[in-house]
Amino acid sequence: MPLSLDTTARLLITCPDKPGIIAAVTNFLYSHNVNITVFDQHSSEPEHGLFFARLEFQIPSLDVSQTALEQSFANVIARPFQMDWRITYAREKKRMAVLVSRHDHCLLELLWRWSRGELHCDMAMVVSNHPDLQKAVEGFGVPFHHLPVTPENKDEAEARMSELLAGHVDLLVLARYMQILSGEFVAPFSERIINIHHSFLPAFAGADPYRQAYEKGVKIIGATAHYVTAELDQGPIIEQGTARVSHRHNVEDLKDLGRDLERQVLARAVRWHLDDRIIVYGGKTVVF
Amino acid sequence: MPLSLDTTARLLITCPDKPGIIAAVTNFLYSHNVNITVFDQHSSEPEHGLFFARLEFQIPSLDVSQTALEQSFANVIARPFQMDWRITYAREKKRMAVLVSRHDHCLLELLWRWSRGELHCDMAMVVSNHPDLQKAVEGFGVPFHHLPVTPENKDEAEARMSELLAGHVDLLVLARYMQILSGEFVAPFSERIINIHHSFLPAFAGADPYRQAYEKGVKIIGATAHYVTAELDQGPIIEQGTARVSHRHNVEDLKDLGRDLERQVLARAVRWHLDDRIIVYGGKTVVF
Amino acid sequence: MPLSLDTTARLLITCPDKPGIIAAVTNFLYSHNVNITVFDQHSSEPEHGLFFARLEFQIPSLDVSQTALEQSFANVIARPFQMDWRITYAREKKRMAVLVSRHDHCLLELLWRWSRGELHCDMAMVVSNHPDLQKAVEGFGVPFHHLPVTPENKDEAEARMSELLAGHVDLLVLARYMQILSGEFVAPFSERIINIHHSFLPAFAGADPYRQAYEKGVKIIGATAHYVTAELDQGPIIEQGTARVSHRHNVEDLKDLGRDLERQVLARAVRWHLDDRIIVYGGKTVVF
Amino acid sequence: MPLSLDTTARLLITCPDKPGIIAAVTNFLYSHNVNITVFDQHSSEPEHGLFFARLEFQIPSLDVSQTALEQSFANVIARPFQMDWRITYAREKKRMAVLVSRHDHCLLELLWRWSRGELHCDMAMVVSNHPDLQKAVEGFGVPFHHLPVTPENKDEAEARMSELLAGHVDLLVLARYMQILSGEFVAPFSERIINIHHSFLPAFAGADPYRQAYEKGVKIIGATAHYVTAELDQGPIIEQGTARVSHRHNVEDLKDLGRDLERQVLARAVRWHLDDRIIVYGGKTVVF
Repeated sequence: MPLSLDTTARLLITCPDKPGIIAAVTNFLYSHNVNITVFDQHSSEPEHGLFFARLEFQIPSLDVSQTALEQSFANVIARPFQMDWRITYAREKKRMAVLVSRHDHCLLELLWRWSRGELHCDMAMVVSNHPDLQKAVEGFGVPFHHLPVTPENKDEAEARMSELLAGHVDLLVLARYMQILSGEFVAPFSERIINIHHSFLPAFAGADPYRQAYEKGVKIIGATAHYVTAELDQGPIIEQGTARVSHRHNVEDLKDLGRDLERQVLARAVRWHLDDRIIVYGGKTVVF
Repeated sequence: MPLSLDTTARLLITCPDKPGIIAAVTNFLYSHNVNITVFDQHSSEPEHGLFFARLEFQIPSLDVSQTALEQSFANVIARPFQMDWRITYAREKKRMAVLVSRHDHCLLELLWRWSRGELHCDMAMVVSNHPDLQKAVEGFGVPFHHLPVTPENKDEAEARMSELLAGHVDLLVLARYMQILSGEFVAPFSERIINIHHSFLPAFAGADPYRQAYEKGVKIIGATAHYVTAELDQGPIIEQGTARVSHRHNVEDLKDLGRDLERQVLARAVRWHLDDRIIVYGGKTVVF
Repeated sequence: MPLSLDTTARLLITCPDKPGIIAAVTNFLYSHNVNITVFDQHSSEPEHGLFFARLEFQIPSLDVSQTALEQSFANVIARPFQMDWRITYAREKKRMAVLVSRHDHCLLELLWRWSRGELHCDMAMVVSNHPDLQKAVEGFGVPFHHLPVTPENKDEAEARMSELLAGHVDLLVLARYMQILSGEFVAPFSERIINIHHSFLPAFAGADPYRQAYEKGVKIIGATAHYVTAELDQGPIIEQGTARVSHRHNVEDLKDLGRDLERQVLARAVRWHLDDRIIVYGGKTVVF
Repeated sequence: MPLSLDTTARLLITCPDKPGIIAAVTNFLYSHNVNITVFDQHSSEPEHGLFFARLEFQIPSLDVSQTALEQSFANVIARPFQMDWRITYAREKKRMAVLVSRHDHCLLELLWRWSRGELHCDMAMVVSNHPDLQKAVEGFGVPFHHLPVTPENKDEAEARMSELLAGHVDLLVLARYMQILSGEFVAPFSERIINIHHSFLPAFAGADPYRQAYEKGVKIIGATAHYVTAELDQGPIIEQGTARVSHRHNVEDLKDLGRDLERQVLARAVRWHLDDRIIVYGGKTVVF
């Protein structure tokens, strides 16, 4: 029997590396009747770098309230070690929204995995600048919003979308959404927007990467899931995948193969985010 | 600057899973002025299974002798938690011997990696039932022993080999050694003999696996590094690798491709063993 | 602009290898105003083996009827070279039926790819021994037949299924259909039933392969698409895929990862069959 | 018994695509008692693009001299179809030279494969701007030339190298040669210099690609073998390989993993060149 997600909590830590952190953290949790089931840790440098950790623990016998646990952790452990940290509780599901244009493959992959319980979240809504996928989305019982975007109404459409999302969404996934989002829109969702780019970044950033790859004559294509920042296709990379190609593949063939990569790479990245596996630092990610 | 291997120690643990192990172990080490740099842990089941851990730590400021540390650990931690455990010190290099027949690819890969410092060990000797590779081995400054094996002298040859190895070798690597070793020979080297089998085990155990794969018409071939037990090709798997093939590959082509797999898979397995990354239990391996 | 499938024909050849085959075939087609666009060929041995070929050609300017072309080919080329051969026309779509139990992942993958035109066929029906997937199937506009199977009615259920399929189906796909089909049922569909087995065959044939893989402790899992023969999980392998796993993956994790493999491997195999890329001989496949 | 390389010839063709090419070529060869054993073909576009082909054929019963065959082919086939073409004979081994600096891994891989017959060529010489690898090279019975390069003598050193190579070498392999070659040096070796770049091009061209990859935080690294042109790291890509990495890999780890990629990718590219499998067009390669 797997452990109940209802009693699962996770602690993510980033702090300056020094001796004693692991002992202090595990001791603290143990003293509160918490059972640590997973402990992953990483040091950016052999010495004097950054220390990262992810713990999963069970709290059915927690001897204080969650709030008390967090306050105590803040005072006793986090402050002396100068930690950037958060504790999340699996039973408090994240709320996810998906932005999509016309390509259905990434969206359907996410909806299918969500419907079978592989993605542990609430699916708050799907927003699209095209009406095409409304029926498919509503078939999963998920609200669909059609927000057309034109060169003229771009700002207005973004404002409307911000309204729809604000306060209702913890994670925003761009599942082949073909509009560039403004820095203003992105800012409040820092490290909470995941995009799938259809190339092996940093190669072939920007438009039509499969055509770029075809024209370059690469022998391997890729897909990249990354957090969105103000700079196009430059945010921290979460996950990548590749597939072999040859001179026999034309641009359409690359798109065919690429769709399969995109679906898998995006699904892994979203799952890792939902499971609190990712820490961002210095424009890169630690994925535990 | 990487941490000095001279001051690196490793602790491997297997014990019944229960709350408090991580806190107890890390606390113990911290109390002896030891700096934990790597901590990997695994539970075989969500509850009531086995707990496995591997720690790397730095001991330049250790406040007691190594012997005292180990005795204390045995009493204070290992006994109450019913641990199967060991501490190793990287500066005490393992002594490795390689057994080989005529194929040179796995042997040369190991010698080359050893010569450039990728394999942290002493290369005690190479033993072969053929004289062919003597010059290549001695070119690396490694002793070469030729021990011919015939159906008539098999027992005697094994006895002679046992003599050569006994007390001089911590790890025995079968780098395409084409003789089957007896249970008597293998027993004293439990979990210390690594073999490379040229198939994706458990498929195609036994003789001529590339021909078996060709005749079956598989679309992917493999190689498997495993610890040797009395039962042929059945020991705990350490590492595997695969490569795509097609109807265009005949048996010789499979051997060509397979050689590259074998070299890489064996080299990874040997490196992980030397770095104390492997715990065996229940006929399987945990590779941290 | 890609070539129209309406005017695309394909020729598959198996015959004893000897000089002059390629020249004879290409000459014959050229003399009938046919434009060869793809020519793939393979010899099983350097000399005196079998010769295999697959040609794609365009027939808008064919100077005789299709029947006349085939008759002429039979007389002028196929007979003297002792060919086993067939010509297919892409505009004559194959009719496909899918057999499924409760797992939806392979079925949905096929239906989705079919709905977007990636699988060039008519989807005749889906047959299941469970009612669970009826709604999903009908949502694609595909007929769904529920044929319960019990130990008591097995023969009868197969007979009923044979009736449903006979004369209406050119390809039968077992998309995780959990009933074993009898030799009598399979016989009329020789080389026209594709099954997805959830292991890297020949390893782990039979029931519950992910549990077998977990217990063996393999470091790589696989999936295998193969033609179905009377002998369980022993038919000619069409395609395989693998994914790395570790001690951290329990049986459920293997199933999760395996689902992604199964979907991709089965989809490729079905596509290749529909595109007449596969020749079976000696229990193996040539996949052009 | 494999076909003798002594009687193996290869024909490579590039020409405007139109109906009848395959029939004409195969007919021509058949009429001269030549046995075609391999025929690979590719069209860049469905219609009106370029046609590429590679044929292997056996010439023990050739009814005319090689010169006569080539003259006849030029007149009867190549001219009417406006072909760019060449015929090579496997018994006329290509002469290869390797340029290297201090890293030995790519060089040793090539020498080892050459010594066991995997690379069908004469090894004319190794040239290095450092003396370090002299002994290793001479151990294979291959001449070693030490040509130091300084900012002051760069032109002179290149001139000296050109002298060494001119007329003695058909293929030049840069096996991690850390000097940039001038356009003048490169020009006479058009499509006959292969370089291994230690990144997944076009990502991370230029210096220290592993550091670039580390700083970008990619989850996959690569290596690329390509023909050298006057523009640095921009020549036609022959082959690429990738390996997964994570936050746990520092720059040194990436170099370790990368070495294995570089060795394999370069060895494949060199082998394909030696086997006349590569056609260059439009800055890209067709690899049959």
